[in-house]
Amino acid sequence: MSDRIRIFGDSISGNCYKQKLACSELGVDYDWVETSVLDGSTHTPEFLAMNPNGKVPVMQLPDGRCLSESNAILSWLADGSELVGGDRYERANVLRWLFFEQYSHEPYIATSRFIVRYLGSPPERQADLEAKRPGGYKALDVMEEQLENDDWIANGGFSIADIALYAYTHVAGEGGFDLGKYPAVQQWIARLEARKGFLPMYSDGH
Amino acid sequence: MSDRIRIFGDSISGNCYKQKLACSELGVDYDWVETSVLDGSTHTPEFLAMNPNGKVPVMQLPDGRCLSESNAILSWLADGSELVGGDRYERANVLRWLFFEQYSHEPYIATSRFIVRYLGSPPERQADLEAKRPGGYKALDVMEEQLENDDWIANGGFSIADIALYAYTHVAGEGGFDLGKYPAVQQWIARLEARKGFLPMYSDGH
Repeated sequence: MSDRIRIFGDSISGNCYKQKLACSELGVDYDWVETSVLDGSTHTPEFLAMNPNGKVPVMQLPDGRCLSESNAILSWLADGSELVGGDRYERANVLRWLFFEQYSHEPYIATSRFIVRYLGSPPERQADLEAKRPGGYKALDVMEEQLENDDWIANGGFSIADIALYAYTHVAGEGGFDLGKYPAVQQWIARLEARKGFLPMYSDGH
Repeated sequence: MSDRIRIFGDSISGNCYKQKLACSELGVDYDWVETSVLDGSTHTPEFLAMNPNGKVPVMQLPDGRCLSESNAILSWLADGSELVGGDRYERANVLRWLFFEQYSHEPYIATSRFIVRYLGSPPERQADLEAKRPGGYKALDVMEEQLENDDWIANGGFSIADIALYAYTHVAGEGGFDLGKYPAVQQWIARLEARKGFLPMYSDGH
């Protein structure tokens, strides 16, 4: 039995990429188990025993215990490090942005990318895609305002909130969102990609 | 200036009720500032300065710092208590269920209740309501499976994960969901309502 953690994830998923980037930033070793979201691999009995919600990523500890939800895994990986914030307020403020990401950002920006890039933007999904535009731009507006005043998303320092929001923001264009109107977001993306611990999502370096 | 925290919330909102229930369980004093989600109060310049995302609840500390996102506020309120879990895995596992609540439960179950109870289930929202049924029942299925094996949502003990999921689950019927098929969920609701620290959402005791 391995003494390394195992991460079950799909490399096309930004939610799964978050774990790779966090492990790179934190210097954590892990074994990656490629698990497709498109071929039914997340709904086998074996997978559902690890996560009854049938979603990647799932992290398995060496003792067999499993953890799901991308931002909960980020919190586990970064536990005790500067990346979760310092005091009680800062830790909660990092969580605030992680919940913002899952509730107000991902459902618009990530799902638009999935429809366009992986489903091929079929005609029957155009109304759905259009309906996601206002929510996605609102999330980007909120990020722009924050990043106009600060280099990072939470508490003045790099944290897992930056990792979580970078995952789908930097590929928002793949879902049809125009980042041209968001200079502070673009500068933040460049700042994050210039970090020593950065690991790109794609082999072209982004 | 008060030395108590202030919570800006709408009493019709389950996301805001979570804070009341957590404060009751934890014995935390606070001042409640009723803030309607229906009359534009969450989009005034003053409110947006506290939460640029324009949503309740918002918690304000005595020193003026603000925190948004219901489950991040829960984490702040319960910080250092048993309600956030014990060790590194347990804390992350509580977060796992908080993210599940915001991503896989609330968008179906809470929003259905809002459409039915507060918008009066208008004809133009029927397709939307219908579209939320499978996701809501899937979330209840996941909870039922967890609660068949355990009295509480996470780690074998009462936590803020129970508070977060109780908020909208116990009123799922108001959105048209039938809890009759979920005996373990019903027993968990009764168990939670029997706690010494319980505070009902409605004046009829539920």
